[in-house]
Amino acid sequence: MNQIRVGVAGCGTVGTQFIKILQGRRTALWEETGLWFDLAGVADIDRRKAALVRGRFFSDAYQLVKNPEVNIFVELIGGLNPAYGLVKEALSQGKSVITANKALLSEYGEELMSLAETNRVYLGFEASVGGAIPIIKTARESFVGTSIQRMLGILNGTTNYILSRMTLEKMSFSAALEMARKRGYAEADPALDLSGTDTTHKLGILVRYLFRKTVPWRRIPVEGIETVEPMDIQYAQELGYRIKLLAVADARSGSLDIRVHPTLLPANHLLALVEDVYNAIYLEGDLIGQSLLFGEGAGGKAAASAVLADVVEVGLKLRQGGYASFRWRENDKLKIMEPSASVSRCYLRFTAVDRPGVLAKIAHILGSYNISIASVIQKQENPRKAVPIIVLTHHSQEEAFQKALARINRLEVIYRPTIRFRLVE
Amino acid sequence: MNQIRVGVAGCGTVGTQFIKILQGRRTALWEETGLWFDLAGVADIDRRKAALVRGRFFSDAYQLVKNPEVNIFVELIGGLNPAYGLVKEALSQGKSVITANKALLSEYGEELMSLAETNRVYLGFEASVGGAIPIIKTARESFVGTSIQRMLGILNGTTNYILSRMTLEKMSFSAALEMARKRGYAEADPALDLSGTDTTHKLGILVRYLFRKTVPWRRIPVEGIETVEPMDIQYAQELGYRIKLLAVADARSGSLDIRVHPTLLPANHLLALVEDVYNAIYLEGDLIGQSLLFGEGAGGKAAASAVLADVVEVGLKLRQGGYASFRWRENDKLKIMEPSASVSRCYLRFTAVDRPGVLAKIAHILGSYNISIASVIQKQENPRKAVPIIVLTHHSQEEAFQKALARINRLEVIYRPTIRFRLVE
Repeated sequence: MNQIRVGVAGCGTVGTQFIKILQGRRTALWEETGLWFDLAGVADIDRRKAALVRGRFFSDAYQLVKNPEVNIFVELIGGLNPAYGLVKEALSQGKSVITANKALLSEYGEELMSLAETNRVYLGFEASVGGAIPIIKTARESFVGTSIQRMLGILNGTTNYILSRMTLEKMSFSAALEMARKRGYAEADPALDLSGTDTTHKLGILVRYLFRKTVPWRRIPVEGIETVEPMDIQYAQELGYRIKLLAVADARSGSLDIRVHPTLLPANHLLALVEDVYNAIYLEGDLIGQSLLFGEGAGGKAAASAVLADVVEVGLKLRQGGYASFRWRENDKLKIMEPSASVSRCYLRFTAVDRPGVLAKIAHILGSYNISIASVIQKQENPRKAVPIIVLTHHSQEEAFQKALARINRLEVIYRPTIRFRLVE
Repeated sequence: MNQIRVGVAGCGTVGTQFIKILQGRRTALWEETGLWFDLAGVADIDRRKAALVRGRFFSDAYQLVKNPEVNIFVELIGGLNPAYGLVKEALSQGKSVITANKALLSEYGEELMSLAETNRVYLGFEASVGGAIPIIKTARESFVGTSIQRMLGILNGTTNYILSRMTLEKMSFSAALEMARKRGYAEADPALDLSGTDTTHKLGILVRYLFRKTVPWRRIPVEGIETVEPMDIQYAQELGYRIKLLAVADARSGSLDIRVHPTLLPANHLLALVEDVYNAIYLEGDLIGQSLLFGEGAGGKAAASAVLADVVEVGLKLRQGGYASFRWRENDKLKIMEPSASVSRCYLRFTAVDRPGVLAKIAHILGSYNISIASVIQKQENPRKAVPIIVLTHHSQEEAFQKALARINRLEVIYRPTIRFRLVE
């Protein structure tokens, strides 16, 4: 089979780019692969999108899926419905599917992947995480022999853009969000990004291929970036750190510590230099040592590039005939760590009355939970006002932090709930 | 074919690691791929290596190649001979070959690849560049639709380790080289690394897959790191730069500017943070925007991991049956730029008598070749001795720099040949 007939559902940013690229680079792709990629049809609920293609246009995507001419079904509608039904239908009909839909995969990934295996077809989803970064392929194929011990990821462009503006231009959170909106980097309702939920979706997908462990995204403890204030970014800088929204998956202790939160990272860590809407994934593994993949996390072109790579890969496999795929192997030995058992260093910002003995009180409570202090910044600003006290701790358990902070927050000398971010080295 | 029989020639650092991994992770690989990887035989001129395997040992590698049981021949001997003959023999017999041999590929890569294509077998060489970094797979497969505009690479661990020690610990070149030797990061004769030759080999291999252009490594202009002095590293730091040995391939002007030399990089460039024996490849492309891959560039485990990935990929293809591969497509439109036409900014260190008017003389000559000055550092140290004058220029042509510096070096007030490094942003 030298002709591969591709059906595309969804003509949004990614879909439109993908259609353009497929049509524009057909000859180059043919020279490189010996495959001729034909656009068998395009589906969108908006009939005006018909102008995009000379080929067949369907306003009902099921008609496209059922079209016997389609070899590969590309789902770029996004969201759970109708994407879920369409992808199931395509796989059941023995068609390979390529999707960029992270919500779909984090909700129904397991089911869809086993459906693909049963029907001996391929399900590609490189574009669902990290835009143009080939993290799924790298995890499954290039690092096939490696046992991954730790992953740190910047997986959401919107929040990283906001934190970059707050760091590099000292903007407030709301000004930075406004700027992200103007540039088209934040949606009208940016809650899914800001709250870290989008990052947990992506982390769930990644962890499956990096650690061979299925973790429902709802089980991943998450904190968004709404609590990060410009002063925290500044204090972190004084201490030699940057604040990033990190997806963390750490199996070094023997169980999987998995979480999403704003994090202090040493300023000379490669991830600390990842600015704006870029994404990056940092890995540690037994064979590979340290590894990092960096690239555009958002934008139609980057995602369309990843979709195209999947389409070409499946096209080559279809031409070869037969069926050979990586298989799913759940790592049953690896348990998910209880969130309260997670161990880390922390950045704490207390808002306290400026009176002698306050730090001693705080230190005493921390000490009683076995939390020891690594460094302190205490600013003497206005003696009549509350002052921030910044503490970097050594390693301690999550449970200890929560109990200690609850007690400290009840102290009369504490004016506001204590801000806490974890620190990763 | 669910059983894949692998023959390994060469039991050095990489070979020994690869054999260990293949034997130790067989069950995990089977669970993930449905393939059973058998070690069909091992060859080495040193008979004592027979202890490594329970399987068949050959002191004549040709016997291994000719063994009909071998499906995949893994060449980890290194160097041109006998590797060249063995790989040719294996391909001619219709066996797929995996190699980590960058010298072999830069000398005979074209011939071997077309031999593989003719015989409808696979030639994998991910381990030849960048250790565990999956750059070949990423370039060919993940970035298949992208036109790469620029590549900057740190491709040699030894030189990067030396520059790191000179930068981070302010060591002299010879002390840093000595430390690299002690750690096993530099060979007894490190000339191939220090001179940049090893980097040109790797750049030649990469450029073929990133730009679809065959450039014989001998045509790549190269400068080694022997001319870098601690004071250059310090002045560069004062100006906000780091010095790295970079492989540069830049097609933004329409022709391919390709070269290897010590380079000033802005301190906040991701590549500037790549220290020790790590490697990294930075890319710019029309669909992907900016991209970076970072990882261990040296060491047996990292390279063995890349060899294993190739073996598994070919194993899956063999099981599938048929033959489907990316094809070679030379980009005939892209011409290689004449080295003299290359345009860049430069760091210049003049060693001049400390007398009024010297800088004016230098600036006058630079100006007469249309080289304009961006910034100057002139240290007043010992008025009786020669002083360094540091100049950062704006963009100019290589030819202009060479002519201007030849004239300046002939000035009576100049004590030593001027040091020049290019600057990349």
